[in-house]
Amino acid sequence: MNEKDNSKKKNQTSNSTAAPKRKYYRKKAAPKAAADTSLLPAVQENEKPVRSRQPREVRRTPVRIIPLGGLLEIGKNMTVFECSNDMFILDCGLAFPDADMPGVDIVIPDFTYVERNRDRLRGIVLTHGHEDHIGGLAYLLKKVNVPIYGTKLTLGLVEGKLREHGLSGKVQLNVIEPKKTVKMGCMAVEFIKVNHSIPDAVGMAIHTPAGIIVHTGDFKVDYAPIDGKIIDLARFGELGSRGVLALMADSTNAERPGYTHSERTVGESFDKLFKKAEGKRIIIATFSSNIHRVQQIINCAERYGRKIAVFGRSMVNVINTAIELGYLDVPKGIIIDIENMNRYESERIVLITTGSQGEPMSALTRMAMNDHKKVNITPMDFIIISATPIPGNEKYVTRVVNELMKSGAEVIYEAMYEVHVSGHACQEELKLMLALTKPKFFIPVHGEYKHLKKHADLGVEMGIPKENVIIASNGNVIETDGNKMNIISQVPSGRVLVDGLGVGDVGSIVLRDRKHLAQDGLIIIVIGIERSTNTIVAGPDIISRGFVYVRESEELIVEAKNILSSTLFNCSNAELKEWNTLKGKMRDALSDYIYQKTKRSPMILPIIMET
Amino acid sequence: MNEKDNSKKKNQTSNSTAAPKRKYYRKKAAPKAAADTSLLPAVQENEKPVRSRQPREVRRTPVRIIPLGGLLEIGKNMTVFECSNDMFILDCGLAFPDADMPGVDIVIPDFTYVERNRDRLRGIVLTHGHEDHIGGLAYLLKKVNVPIYGTKLTLGLVEGKLREHGLSGKVQLNVIEPKKTVKMGCMAVEFIKVNHSIPDAVGMAIHTPAGIIVHTGDFKVDYAPIDGKIIDLARFGELGSRGVLALMADSTNAERPGYTHSERTVGESFDKLFKKAEGKRIIIATFSSNIHRVQQIINCAERYGRKIAVFGRSMVNVINTAIELGYLDVPKGIIIDIENMNRYESERIVLITTGSQGEPMSALTRMAMNDHKKVNITPMDFIIISATPIPGNEKYVTRVVNELMKSGAEVIYEAMYEVHVSGHACQEELKLMLALTKPKFFIPVHGEYKHLKKHADLGVEMGIPKENVIIASNGNVIETDGNKMNIISQVPSGRVLVDGLGVGDVGSIVLRDRKHLAQDGLIIIVIGIERSTNTIVAGPDIISRGFVYVRESEELIVEAKNILSSTLFNCSNAELKEWNTLKGKMRDALSDYIYQKTKRSPMILPIIMET
Repeated sequence: MNEKDNSKKKNQTSNSTAAPKRKYYRKKAAPKAAADTSLLPAVQENEKPVRSRQPREVRRTPVRIIPLGGLLEIGKNMTVFECSNDMFILDCGLAFPDADMPGVDIVIPDFTYVERNRDRLRGIVLTHGHEDHIGGLAYLLKKVNVPIYGTKLTLGLVEGKLREHGLSGKVQLNVIEPKKTVKMGCMAVEFIKVNHSIPDAVGMAIHTPAGIIVHTGDFKVDYAPIDGKIIDLARFGELGSRGVLALMADSTNAERPGYTHSERTVGESFDKLFKKAEGKRIIIATFSSNIHRVQQIINCAERYGRKIAVFGRSMVNVINTAIELGYLDVPKGIIIDIENMNRYESERIVLITTGSQGEPMSALTRMAMNDHKKVNITPMDFIIISATPIPGNEKYVTRVVNELMKSGAEVIYEAMYEVHVSGHACQEELKLMLALTKPKFFIPVHGEYKHLKKHADLGVEMGIPKENVIIASNGNVIETDGNKMNIISQVPSGRVLVDGLGVGDVGSIVLRDRKHLAQDGLIIIVIGIERSTNTIVAGPDIISRGFVYVRESEELIVEAKNILSSTLFNCSNAELKEWNTLKGKMRDALSDYIYQKTKRSPMILPIIMET
Repeated sequence: MNEKDNSKKKNQTSNSTAAPKRKYYRKKAAPKAAADTSLLPAVQENEKPVRSRQPREVRRTPVRIIPLGGLLEIGKNMTVFECSNDMFILDCGLAFPDADMPGVDIVIPDFTYVERNRDRLRGIVLTHGHEDHIGGLAYLLKKVNVPIYGTKLTLGLVEGKLREHGLSGKVQLNVIEPKKTVKMGCMAVEFIKVNHSIPDAVGMAIHTPAGIIVHTGDFKVDYAPIDGKIIDLARFGELGSRGVLALMADSTNAERPGYTHSERTVGESFDKLFKKAEGKRIIIATFSSNIHRVQQIINCAERYGRKIAVFGRSMVNVINTAIELGYLDVPKGIIIDIENMNRYESERIVLITTGSQGEPMSALTRMAMNDHKKVNITPMDFIIISATPIPGNEKYVTRVVNELMKSGAEVIYEAMYEVHVSGHACQEELKLMLALTKPKFFIPVHGEYKHLKKHADLGVEMGIPKENVIIASNGNVIETDGNKMNIISQVPSGRVLVDGLGVGDVGSIVLRDRKHLAQDGLIIIVIGIERSTNTIVAGPDIISRGFVYVRESEELIVEAKNILSSTLFNCSNAELKEWNTLKGKMRDALSDYIYQKTKRSPMILPIIMET
């Protein structure tokens, strides 16, 4: 206790004398003092030269940070950085549609601002190969074709996407190793190794005339990662000691106390479960991009003398890419063709499959619903769902679990076995990142408001002045000259919906109609009018869909027709000429009647045919 | 260790000599031996007389148990019990619609079997007043009007429902106290006090010619309940020692180890939070039926000198009923009218509101969206969401939390403060119930397959022979003569959808159409044909809804019309007569074109007008 108290005093002293301008790490930092001290020497050594190179209150060329996605939402991460006449983009992801976007396949950011400034755009840097960071890229590249910079695996996955969009070979892809730097006009982007749930993830240090901006990308701290490459904490610390102007950090798990467990713990669970599953076929569902997890499954399979068969298009694709690029260490002959599965006893086999989110068309869901051509679930199956449901998917996953269990299989899906760990930093790791980089300004990113707010609070607790913490929104233009940081204006931003081949042609009106149709269905009224004489020559007819089962509601439909007929009968000749008025009259009469009888409000669509 | 081993041996011995017919509590029961032994003396004393009264293998009048809801699903709990010429129903609940039932308001059980057997129906007994146990009642009573039996609060809540359905005064409601018994022909139903998240909940002991069947209803074990009334464990034990033929028990939390916390812990959290919220207005959202929780809010409000205003229709209704019937202890003058809120400083007020599930039309959601007439959220608000999201509602709750936080309010919604506890028993309580009742047969109820399976496994672990544990489905007819229990047949069962005033008129075809319309929208083709000459006198016209924004897709629509025109042009005169063929041709031509251009498959509806 005394020791800790001493170190606290020492810190306070050194802060108040050697670094009067820095106020952080004074308040509440005490409990973490031991951890902080280990990082302090380097900081203190470098502090003087840094200050002499960066005198206070000298306005430097301003830098602007413009998030176009990923703030106050989950997904479609994209940020623009610009300075003078140069601009680059960090990540370009997609988001998955909400329940209030029926029929929509994916959601991408609004690229308007980038298109308008295409002349200044120097390139795109990518932090890692997850869909929410690279899934919008192909759509952007169709509008502005600029060089892409990323690590080897990230670009391997990007290449697959470009192929799907017919862009293969048309885009310049540049592999950048961690610790290397890419020039973007007057700015330079340095890649820094981080840990995440996909290999080859990096954070970025953006060296600008106004100062260094650190963007963590998605990260966690894993001291025992499967590929042995630990997040480059030293470099983050070195930057911190030189002076970081702003930190932009992953807020996904900002609500969770403690540390995220190492991916290796999942391997230990697998080992136990493989033992438990002796004599049974093993089926493991996980995220295809989690190559470290796939590696651990391969390692277990080898240890227990099992062959591996791979199911699901994206799983096959990612595993192939990972093997090609050397990210998976696969013993010869261990992966077998699905067609040859029957040559092996089922207790000597492991199936790796997609579908850990209960996606309706995925391999695992089809297995669960007895709808898979090659795999039939029996009590001799031992199934591991190595994932946590993403919010919104809980019910789908539960349905798959129930169906698998009904076939008699043993299903492991609970947290009790630790068959999944998160890829994002929890509170203690977030504090570590703040402590290492000691930023002047702090912009929490990658999360909904509640995540950003919690992360902002953590920053303030760590001693960053409240006024230096910015919770921004997509489209905000955040400007800094090295001394101040402010939101100075707004550029176009928002969501663009992709449905089939259509990009942006499904907007709020189409969605409103789809939701209305889903809610109460549709009634179409058709009449034919002879234009010259203004006489009704056909109808009124009624056609409905999604409203009631017509054969069992004949009375209702007949009465509805009667009401329409009498409405038309009571129309003056003048009214029959004004078709819009006429349509309105029919719509009102029918909708009143239908609501009174059923308390429903189907969409009513009057159609007048001119003959 | 030795002690335990001894007790284990003792148990085995006593089992194998004194009670050869009972095989449970032998396997794996050892670790729990201490707890079990405390219950054993009574069991052993009574064992002989019981056996002499119930000689083995004497066939008694068979009893049939027919679950019509609540198995392999969450909600719409309903079970039929029948023996000779008598039948009664236990609970009649509703379920909330899934995402794949757009527009549906609620789901109720299929009453066909009950209607067919109305002559034998003696009454309906209710375990407690939650929607999933009483919400289908009014629909059933419109078909078969029989007496209802329940505790005072349960019937108070039922009365409210009957009023809404115009059934007030038309149904016989009989208040039954716990420990009292209702005759149902040759069966008798005894009410037994249990704890749950609503006061006045009971389990039932059904005394039948074949033996005693215990149904727990929804239950938990709360040793410090707010109303002081602890679950009547002694009676369950007494029944167990007399000999329970079958146990039907709540499986909701069968996946959760340990014990469910006492409702009182929530009150302790409230106390801390009221202290923390000093100087701010407090808003608490919770389930309206959780009257004990409302009581604890009232107690806190009194302690901290705050007035209470109540928001949300169901909250107002339930609180009024609870006050009327004496289930809430409300200090005079503490509840104020919403209209008078402004007379008090906001830091002297607590708002109690509905909306803890983020329901779009609820009071809390409207407050969050700045859409509430009386309440404007500011940084001076301290908001507690005293509930856990029901699976499927996570995203709604998150959206509300985000919006409330954006207004600057402090929002407590995490588990860290224990502002919510479950109303259902966890594994240790389920084991306690099994240990007390020592049933010969075990039917886990109230849950999806995964819950029932886990509960069944618990039963087997506790020593019930595997073949005596039945995981049943809705509609199964489970018959027992006291010696055996089997599923012998199947009666009609399923879900009946209620949409507005329509009960059952939305079926699979209507739902399929609604989903199709929601997914890709609709294109209507209209042509007018002169019947006598078979000439096309109008159209083809195209109208679309929910497909594309037409003004921005003119080219697509024009081309679609051209394709239809040429399709019609190429039709022979004979084809023009066959309208179904003609419709098919137009549909195919258009859908091919649309899919090729957009990769979407809207519903295509050809309409031919005869003039």
